[in-house]
Amino acid sequence: MSERIQPRTLKGFRDYLPEAMIPREWLIDTARSVYRSYGFSPIDTPALEYLEILTGKGSEETDKQLYRFQDHGGRDVGLRFDLTIPLARFAAQHIQELGIPFKRYHIANVWRGENTQRGRYREFMQCDFDTIGTESNSADIEMVLVVHDLFAAIGFEDFQIHVNNRRVLNGLLEKLGLAERSTLVLRALDKLAKGGAKVVSQELTTVAGASEGQVRDILQLATLRGDNSQVLAQLTPLLAGSETGERGLNELAEMVAALDATGIPSGRFGIDVSIARGLDYYTGTVLETFLEKLPGIGSVCSGGRYDNLAELYTKEHLPGVGASLGLDRLLAAMEELGQLKKTSTTAPVFLPFFAAAHRDDYLRLAANVRRAGIGVEFFPEAKKLGKQLQYADKRGFRIALIAGADELAAGQCQVKNLATGESTTVSAAEDGTAVIAEIRRILGA
Amino acid sequence: MSERIQPRTLKGFRDYLPEAMIPREWLIDTARSVYRSYGFSPIDTPALEYLEILTGKGSEETDKQLYRFQDHGGRDVGLRFDLTIPLARFAAQHIQELGIPFKRYHIANVWRGENTQRGRYREFMQCDFDTIGTESNSADIEMVLVVHDLFAAIGFEDFQIHVNNRRVLNGLLEKLGLAERSTLVLRALDKLAKGGAKVVSQELTTVAGASEGQVRDILQLATLRGDNSQVLAQLTPLLAGSETGERGLNELAEMVAALDATGIPSGRFGIDVSIARGLDYYTGTVLETFLEKLPGIGSVCSGGRYDNLAELYTKEHLPGVGASLGLDRLLAAMEELGQLKKTSTTAPVFLPFFAAAHRDDYLRLAANVRRAGIGVEFFPEAKKLGKQLQYADKRGFRIALIAGADELAAGQCQVKNLATGESTTVSAAEDGTAVIAEIRRILGA
Repeated sequence: MSERIQPRTLKGFRDYLPEAMIPREWLIDTARSVYRSYGFSPIDTPALEYLEILTGKGSEETDKQLYRFQDHGGRDVGLRFDLTIPLARFAAQHIQELGIPFKRYHIANVWRGENTQRGRYREFMQCDFDTIGTESNSADIEMVLVVHDLFAAIGFEDFQIHVNNRRVLNGLLEKLGLAERSTLVLRALDKLAKGGAKVVSQELTTVAGASEGQVRDILQLATLRGDNSQVLAQLTPLLAGSETGERGLNELAEMVAALDATGIPSGRFGIDVSIARGLDYYTGTVLETFLEKLPGIGSVCSGGRYDNLAELYTKEHLPGVGASLGLDRLLAAMEELGQLKKTSTTAPVFLPFFAAAHRDDYLRLAANVRRAGIGVEFFPEAKKLGKQLQYADKRGFRIALIAGADELAAGQCQVKNLATGESTTVSAAEDGTAVIAEIRRILGA
Repeated sequence: MSERIQPRTLKGFRDYLPEAMIPREWLIDTARSVYRSYGFSPIDTPALEYLEILTGKGSEETDKQLYRFQDHGGRDVGLRFDLTIPLARFAAQHIQELGIPFKRYHIANVWRGENTQRGRYREFMQCDFDTIGTESNSADIEMVLVVHDLFAAIGFEDFQIHVNNRRVLNGLLEKLGLAERSTLVLRALDKLAKGGAKVVSQELTTVAGASEGQVRDILQLATLRGDNSQVLAQLTPLLAGSETGERGLNELAEMVAALDATGIPSGRFGIDVSIARGLDYYTGTVLETFLEKLPGIGSVCSGGRYDNLAELYTKEHLPGVGASLGLDRLLAAMEELGQLKKTSTTAPVFLPFFAAAHRDDYLRLAANVRRAGIGVEFFPEAKKLGKQLQYADKRGFRIALIAGADELAAGQCQVKNLATGESTTVSAAEDGTAVIAEIRRILGA
């Protein structure tokens, strides 16, 4: 080899080493098992799509970030930049065969040529679930239940699901005769958290052309605080007489009652009239999820209801509701909170290759332990025991099975707890029954 | 919407609907859990790599099939076409941090602009495991054990792992003074199955320039048959005196002894001197796996030992051994053998929305069943029961929980076995204990 190629990844892309990949796989598994427990089914779609499919509804920003090229047949193609457009295309193509309601989850990578200086990656994983083809509020309620179960299953105690309904503000604006200026109003309200009421008030007046009374009503709605029943009570007079507003209010009230009925702790769910999520896309329920200990990272799981998923591709009217888990953001948060255990092994038990002439005895012992459903890594070379235990320590094994020639001859084996250093000598006979029991005792503790 | 975009996928790409995706996820999970039980750890690498990384060692064929383009920064990039080159680049880049031996699995999509007329797809999943950084035969033996456990876990009874060692033939050729013509000899031997001994004999003489005695020895080796000890016994005199050949023979003998020791059924593993796998890449053990009931589909899991994984990217000498599961081929085989259960739901239990005023009661019941670890899909709309049960039937649920307003008022619920049509009415009180017990009884049966 005279010239070597420098091994490197592209800017904005990254390798996942075992220490990063093991918690990532765990998080994906956890999300999948929660989605599945509600009857959501997996789908997958191609990474590459016709360019016209991807750019159909894209914003200028996503179009700019799209990885696009011509394939071998001269077709204009691109790498998907989200899982929503592929879902819309998929639903338009297959909904007759699938039937409705159609509940799917999709966990897959997407690509965007983002500016990496903002700490963004150009390849990242999305983890979405949606219910398509029903307008029933049951599906909205279920979305909140799924998000709740998901964060509970991940191990969070202190998280809050904020819910709003776009019909609440829309109803008020209809009532005030400002329905056609809703985008301008939403844009002004977006500045509430940072700029405060004064800034918003000014923009509502000058840009959205709202009167003093209209500004007061809008701000009253946007700054409502209190527990769920208080918020509902305060919304009632504000929205009275608006069909849209009353429908939104009723949907929120049904949701609150249903979540109470299923025993969701009240602190984990609240109506938050300040969240809007997307100026055009969402039409009913909107949802964001915050970690109490890390409010600064923003919402780690967001979603909502939309009116018509696939209008670009089919005349079929497909309303839906769903949310997306911010996998990478959540992993970063869990790391910051110390919720991730550092390990780079997938097997709890390490078996050093101690006595060089006894490979088959070790293999037999390992096979017995594996048959009991416990993972064992057998070191491939009969190096010095200390070296092998260093390897085990670096990777984070919990137990080592240590057996020299004498022990093997006597049908025995030491089971060593690598966290405490304690070691027990047990019989290695009878298909490893005693070894397995001692491993289980340590792992269970 | 005046003009709609036709929803379609690119030629050679496909959507996975739930019915196809559910067994696919199951197979991936099964592979992962077997790999993990031996201490292999997951990694992931970017879909996009620098073009020079991907074309470094590529053959003319893979280069032609490569999806390549210029990214936003004008860099020449490509989509990975296998997981071996990314592993080589990854190992070169990170091996100091990872330490050796490094055992990884990698389950991910790759892309090749193949000719789809041969029934090939342009996006498909690879499912590889490898042990890097050791020359120990333990790692080779472990590869066979992993493949065995994998096929047993998938539920196959009749599979055969064929193993050979490249050193066996190389040793004979060295002994015969034909070492430098080994590629020509291998190419001739490749025709044995189809053309028979006569064709091979002729090509060995005319193309590889072998003498009559040499042809006889080569054909004797290549046509050895019998059980493992018979094959080993016949190889011994043929290879006597060749260091390479004796080493290969010894490695095979060690492997046979080790597999016997771990209790692998003897019919599932055999030395097969006729397999070669790749003219240059593999240097020691080679492995192929066949399904007895479907020999025509060829090897569904293949691998072997290689001398130096990452020589293009690093001066570090990294020998390794590993295999790759042909996921799509295997799924097709399982479907052909009727081993895949048709279902498009991930939850066993279906809960119709029967009495419109009782949504919260249904949600509570569903939550209780889910807390017991059993998936339940609740239908979102209070449609006619018959329609809802049609939906359940189409998707393949196993159980329906049926409760009308009267039953709910009486704290009761019917648990219906959808396979047999039998139905039992049980109490829905006390967090659904009786319902859960009845579900478990049916699922366990």
